[in-house]
Amino acid sequence: MSSAILAAPTRATPNGFAGFVSQLAPHMAELDFFLREQLVAFEPEIRVMVDYCIDTSGKRIRPTLVFLSGWQGAPRVQPELVRVAAVVELVHLATLVHDDIMDEADLRRSRMTVARKYGSPAAVLLGDALFAHALHLATQFPTTEICAAVSASTRRVCAGEIVQTLRRRSTNITRAEYWRIVDLKTAELFRVSCLLGARLAGFSAEYVEAVSRFGRHLGIAYQIYDDLVDFFGEEGRIGKTLGTDLASGKLTLPLLVLLERLSATEAAVLGSEITGERPTQLSLRLRQMGDLGVFQVVALAVNDEIKAAAEALQAYHGVAPTIFLLGLCAGLREQVEALQANSSPLS
Amino acid sequence: MSSAILAAPTRATPNGFAGFVSQLAPHMAELDFFLREQLVAFEPEIRVMVDYCIDTSGKRIRPTLVFLSGWQGAPRVQPELVRVAAVVELVHLATLVHDDIMDEADLRRSRMTVARKYGSPAAVLLGDALFAHALHLATQFPTTEICAAVSASTRRVCAGEIVQTLRRRSTNITRAEYWRIVDLKTAELFRVSCLLGARLAGFSAEYVEAVSRFGRHLGIAYQIYDDLVDFFGEEGRIGKTLGTDLASGKLTLPLLVLLERLSATEAAVLGSEITGERPTQLSLRLRQMGDLGVFQVVALAVNDEIKAAAEALQAYHGVAPTIFLLGLCAGLREQVEALQANSSPLS
Repeated sequence: MSSAILAAPTRATPNGFAGFVSQLAPHMAELDFFLREQLVAFEPEIRVMVDYCIDTSGKRIRPTLVFLSGWQGAPRVQPELVRVAAVVELVHLATLVHDDIMDEADLRRSRMTVARKYGSPAAVLLGDALFAHALHLATQFPTTEICAAVSASTRRVCAGEIVQTLRRRSTNITRAEYWRIVDLKTAELFRVSCLLGARLAGFSAEYVEAVSRFGRHLGIAYQIYDDLVDFFGEEGRIGKTLGTDLASGKLTLPLLVLLERLSATEAAVLGSEITGERPTQLSLRLRQMGDLGVFQVVALAVNDEIKAAAEALQAYHGVAPTIFLLGLCAGLREQVEALQANSSPLS
Repeated sequence: MSSAILAAPTRATPNGFAGFVSQLAPHMAELDFFLREQLVAFEPEIRVMVDYCIDTSGKRIRPTLVFLSGWQGAPRVQPELVRVAAVVELVHLATLVHDDIMDEADLRRSRMTVARKYGSPAAVLLGDALFAHALHLATQFPTTEICAAVSASTRRVCAGEIVQTLRRRSTNITRAEYWRIVDLKTAELFRVSCLLGARLAGFSAEYVEAVSRFGRHLGIAYQIYDDLVDFFGEEGRIGKTLGTDLASGKLTLPLLVLLERLSATEAAVLGSEITGERPTQLSLRLRQMGDLGVFQVVALAVNDEIKAAAEALQAYHGVAPTIFLLGLCAGLREQVEALQANSSPLS
């Protein structure tokens, strides 16, 4: 890959987020090298587990945000950005390890989850060790600022996950509450990835602030999109079964909208599927989502957040990262469109 | 409590560790106040859970180490020491929350464990949030040194817990491996508590190093003592049932020594109790421990580590914290002696 392509990707490839990652191949190669180097920091017995987590099949969205937000026009890969990309990715991996315990998930990215492979107790502790190492890497900057931002962010991510966990199997969640959970559990780490990338690259405080706002809205958009994928994705492509949110009683936006649009009687039945009082009827719910235009409503919410993300950068079209970050918006919009093909009932 | 008592407690009270805590009452009061103040940093939904964790019934050993290692002769409570005491205590509380998930424990300090009260998923996340907040507090010092030390330490503590978890229900553990697990899971945080207390008080690098070595040996001694308590303690006093290590297949030093001293046939039977192939025979094992002098062997190991701790401070009898820290050694020695009364078989 030539540095010319790296210097000016004006739009996302058809693969959207994944396409961008391929344009950042040298950055990602350095990140992978850096992450592998971290293995020796762990005690010998747990290196194989850490190695299993640091696989390369992930989308590396948060590192992408770090690298793009810190983009300065030159193709050189800045070591500080690699380090901070590793920090946010390790925090993310730690949350995935712990999430999979809670979800009792078997598969993640088409591979056995850590909890399934090594047992829940080891997975709890491995997640802790990954968190601790991420924060340790964050202390290897001249100031405490990076570590302070990452640790505060991690606490908010956990809070979001706790709130979601406490609200599981409840049908009594408002849109505002859903947004808050999404903001905490996903948008927070997107935001801090953008913030730290731009901050380490030395951009102005105003731009750092704008990029942070961008990251937050993009994170919300991405999570809502992900909740849409759980109903309308292709199983082979996403590496897990569909309808897991309904099965585990997580009231995400597609279900919220469906609940609003069903008759009171039907909504009550769906409600008791969410609370776990009745077995779930996934194919019926998918058909109803198609019939009642749920996909369109949720896709609109995604696009609204993408728009808000782009608007955060409106005054900064001349600054180097902006064009890349807007490319991410375009990429996500394309992914939502690609999903639409699955939004009509197959039956 | 007068400052005169605070300034010169030359030996531990009969309550040992707990007695020292009572002599540090103003420090502990400030610590409790500080910990309560942290509640607002957490999202409203999880404050009640955090509050439940930050109870005051704990022994606060690690804060005690911070305060005593940072002792400078004046009764004034240094705010930096309070902050660092909160950091190590929160890390410790987080590990307890996660430990109790793994042990499927019902009680901790005679109260329901967080996992039992709020469910394992919430407990996993709450532990994470406590870790993250501890490390966030550690970033609120002028340099990254504190946070770097605490995060590296936390990673080692988790590694120790993982190694122990992976070796559960195995009878194939050497004394060296037992010592390593104890060193990582317990002594590490004792060491860093002493290190940071002395460091923040501005003591010389040599003294900081000596105090760290002291902390490490005291930590090993304390954990071996704790493993002894699991067999020879009084249930009412320790707030949990006896024999939990045997029941959960943890090969601690008392069991290791018993295995060594039993006949091959008997050792094989005990081995299959540890691996979970047979039901455990706690009262038989306690009687055998008494008959075969297991208590004495393990108590000797505790005392050897206490001696090594005291020796680390040998060249520093004139430095303010030394007399206090040696008092902790005396206190732990007394606690071991007090336990001896239970070491003879009751039957």
